[in-house]
Amino acid sequence: MTQATQEKATTSATTAFRALQCKECGAEYEPKATHVCELCFGPLEVKYDYDFLRRTVTRETIQAGPFSIWRYRPFLPVMSDNPIDVGTGMTPLLQAHRLARRLGLKKLYIKNDAVNMPTLSFKDRVVSVALTRARELGFTTVSCASTGNLANSTAAIAAHAGLDCCVFIPSDLEAGKVLGTLIYNPTLMAVHGNYDQVNRLCSEVANTHGWGFVNINLRPYYSEGSKTLGYEVIEQLGWQLPDHIVAPLASGSLFTKIYKGFQEFVEVGLVEGKPVRFSGAQAEGCSPIAQAFSEGRDFISPVKPNTIAKSLAIGNPADGVYAIDIAHKTNGNIESVTDAEIIEGMKLLAETEGIFTETAGGTTIATLKKLVEAGKIDPDETTVVYITGNGLKTQEAVQGYVGEPLTIEPKLESFERALERSRTLDRLEWQQVLV
Amino acid sequence: MTQATQEKATTSATTAFRALQCKECGAEYEPKATHVCELCFGPLEVKYDYDFLRRTVTRETIQAGPFSIWRYRPFLPVMSDNPIDVGTGMTPLLQAHRLARRLGLKKLYIKNDAVNMPTLSFKDRVVSVALTRARELGFTTVSCASTGNLANSTAAIAAHAGLDCCVFIPSDLEAGKVLGTLIYNPTLMAVHGNYDQVNRLCSEVANTHGWGFVNINLRPYYSEGSKTLGYEVIEQLGWQLPDHIVAPLASGSLFTKIYKGFQEFVEVGLVEGKPVRFSGAQAEGCSPIAQAFSEGRDFISPVKPNTIAKSLAIGNPADGVYAIDIAHKTNGNIESVTDAEIIEGMKLLAETEGIFTETAGGTTIATLKKLVEAGKIDPDETTVVYITGNGLKTQEAVQGYVGEPLTIEPKLESFERALERSRTLDRLEWQQVLV
Repeated sequence: MTQATQEKATTSATTAFRALQCKECGAEYEPKATHVCELCFGPLEVKYDYDFLRRTVTRETIQAGPFSIWRYRPFLPVMSDNPIDVGTGMTPLLQAHRLARRLGLKKLYIKNDAVNMPTLSFKDRVVSVALTRARELGFTTVSCASTGNLANSTAAIAAHAGLDCCVFIPSDLEAGKVLGTLIYNPTLMAVHGNYDQVNRLCSEVANTHGWGFVNINLRPYYSEGSKTLGYEVIEQLGWQLPDHIVAPLASGSLFTKIYKGFQEFVEVGLVEGKPVRFSGAQAEGCSPIAQAFSEGRDFISPVKPNTIAKSLAIGNPADGVYAIDIAHKTNGNIESVTDAEIIEGMKLLAETEGIFTETAGGTTIATLKKLVEAGKIDPDETTVVYITGNGLKTQEAVQGYVGEPLTIEPKLESFERALERSRTLDRLEWQQVLV
Repeated sequence: MTQATQEKATTSATTAFRALQCKECGAEYEPKATHVCELCFGPLEVKYDYDFLRRTVTRETIQAGPFSIWRYRPFLPVMSDNPIDVGTGMTPLLQAHRLARRLGLKKLYIKNDAVNMPTLSFKDRVVSVALTRARELGFTTVSCASTGNLANSTAAIAAHAGLDCCVFIPSDLEAGKVLGTLIYNPTLMAVHGNYDQVNRLCSEVANTHGWGFVNINLRPYYSEGSKTLGYEVIEQLGWQLPDHIVAPLASGSLFTKIYKGFQEFVEVGLVEGKPVRFSGAQAEGCSPIAQAFSEGRDFISPVKPNTIAKSLAIGNPADGVYAIDIAHKTNGNIESVTDAEIIEGMKLLAETEGIFTETAGGTTIATLKKLVEAGKIDPDETTVVYITGNGLKTQEAVQGYVGEPLTIEPKLESFERALERSRTLDRLEWQQVLV
C-alpha cells in the first residue's frame, strides 16, 4: 500500500472551502484542476464560507492545532483531514533589534522563511497545499514551472508523498537550486529560455499530459498557501496586525495572498481591523511591477529579466496588477533596487541578525532600506519584512563580495600575525571611513 | 544600548544547574569558563539538582514553554530568563513510511535537524546554549574550532547577539560552509591542517586571549545543548522512549548527550524508563570509534581523516570512549560506511522522504541500512535516526552523482522528445536491474 493510499482524503466537517470563483466576473466553478474563467479569462480564486468559519474557528482552536501551516486548515482549500504535513510553516517572527537600530526604526520584525521546512523557502507552504489538493483530485504526477525554489519544494514534497514529479526550470539557474532539485530524483527539464518561456511551455504541457501543475492548473489552490504568511504574522504578533509590511514581488501572488490572509482574519473576527500598508520589492533588472507603479500605470509592460535575483525574475507577472492595486489602496510603495544593493542587503541582514538569505531576501532588505531613507516608512510603524528564501541556494551571488578567510599555519605565532594584520586592516578601513 | 545589555541575565528561580563536576573523579568546580579537572585532567560536566527538577518541572510546564530548545531551560546550564532564542530546536520528528518500507522496517522516525534554525544543523542547539552562557560569564568575543557547521552557527548567532566572533576551520572545507560563515562577517581563520590540529591551536589561543571558545573553555555548557535532541524525541513520540537510536559520531559528544537527555527525563519522572539501544555511525575514512568498538578496545587510537564526511572528520574524538561505553551497555553497535555508501545514503533519504542532508546524514542513513541488513536492528523496534545537517552545505559531495537536467528548447516537441528519451532510459535501467 502506498502512502498516498494510506492517507486518502477523508472529508472533514470543518472545511469551509466551497468553490472556485472568477476574480474578475464572479462566475463560479466546481473545485477541480482549473485556473482560468471560461467566460472572461480572469484568474480563478478559492471561495470560502466565512460565516461558517466565524462560527467554528477561534484563536484557541487554531492554537490547539499542529505547529505548521495546517493549524489554519479550515482556511485552506483541502478536504482531507490528513494533509501532507512535513513541518512547513510557523517559521520564526524575529524582532530585529540590531537591524532596526542600523536603519533607525523602532519596531522591525523579520518573518524568516529562509528556514522554512523542508526546502528553506516560502514555496513549501504553497506546495504543501497544492500537493495535498493534487492527491485529492487523483493526480499521480505533479509538475511545476519554477525559478528554482518551487522546483526544490515540489520535488522534495512529491518524494515524501510518493508522487511522480516532473519539474521545469530555466537552464541558467544557480547550481544550488539545480542540485537541490536533482537530489530528490524527479524528471528535471532545463529549458533554454527565461521563466516566462518556461511557463508558456508548461501551460501547453498541462493541457496534454494530465499532470497536476502546482502553479498552473492547480494555481487557485497552490496560491492560497501563501495566506499562511499573513495568518502567522498576526498570531505571532499576539493576534495583532502590523502597520506596514514589505515583501518581494515576482508574480505578485505572495503579496496579494498576505493581503487576503489579513482580510480574512479580520472578516471572521480573529483580529481587530486596522490599516496595514503594503510595500513591494523588485530587482531593477526585472521590475515590471515597480515600473508600472512609478509611472502610475494599472497595466504591466512585460520585460526581459536580467538580475542576480533569479527567483524574482518573472518578466510578465500574472498578479502584477493586483499587487499594484493593493500598494495603492493601502498607501504603500513598490520600489526596485540594483544588483549591488541586493548583495549589500544580503550582507546587512546576515551581519545584524544572523540570517543568511538568498538574493530575493537581499532585494527585500535593500528595498526596506531605500524606503526608510526616502521617509516612506515611519520609524514608529510596526514593520514586518518577509524573507522568503535561503542564501545557501544562491552562493554565486555573494561569492567574491564577502572577503576571504585568513589562511594560517596551525601555530600560535601564525595566528597572532594574522589577527594583528586583520585588526590593522579594520583600523585602516575605519580611518578611510572617517576621512 | 547593545542587545547584550538589554538582555542582561536575570537569575531565574527555576534554574537547577548548580556546579561543574569532573566526569572521572567527581571533583566539583564553580560554573566558570573551564572544562578540565585540575586534579585528574578528566572532562567537566554540568551538575543539576534533580530533586528540584522533579518537584518543579512537569510535561505541562514544558509544553507551555516556547517552541524551541528553551522549553527545556531548567535542564540547561544557563541562569538567564531571556536566553538567546533564534527559534533553535523543535525540528520535525518525521515518521519515515517510505524509507521504512524500502529498508523493511516498521516504525522508523527521522529527527530532522537538517532544517534546524538558524543555520541548518544541530550545532545551533549547542551554540545557543554556549553563547547564552558566554554572555552570562561576561565574554564579548566568542570563538570555536569547527569542521564547518559549528563555524556557521557560531558566526550567525554571535551576529544576532551582537558578540564579536573569531572562527577557526580546516582550510579544505566545503565552499558552502566557508561562505556560510563569511556572510556573517566574523574573523575567519582557515588553518592549514586537519580538525585535530585546529583544535590544538584553539586550546592555546583560549589560554591567551580571554575569548569564550564554545567547544573548549565553554564545552561543559555547550555540549549540554545536545541533550535537547533527546528531550524532543521523547516529547514528540508522545512522552515515550524509542527502542533504538542511530546517530553520527564525530567527537562522540552528541551521542553521549542524547543518552544523558533520556536518562534525565527518566530520573525526574517525565517518562517511563526502558532499555534504549544506542548505535553510532562513522565514515570509514575517519572511524577511530568504530574501529575501537569492533576490536573490543576501550581506548581510541587517533587516525588521520580522509573522507567526504568532513563534518565528522575528527581523528582524535574527545568523547569516543564514552560513546563506546554507551553502545556496549545498551546492546547497540558502532559501524562505519564508505564514501560511496554515504552518497547513496544521501540519495536514498532524499528520494524516499524529501530530506536533503549533508554527508554526515548520508553516513547515518548508510549505517542504518547496514545495521538493518546485518540483522542488528529489529524491524519491530521503534527506531529514531538523527539527521544533523543540510545537504546544501556539502554540494560537492553529490555533484556528479545525481544525474543532470534534460536540456530542452521552450517548445512542446522538444519536451516530448526529452520525456520519451528519459522514459526509454528508465526502462533500460529497469531491464538491466531485472537481467
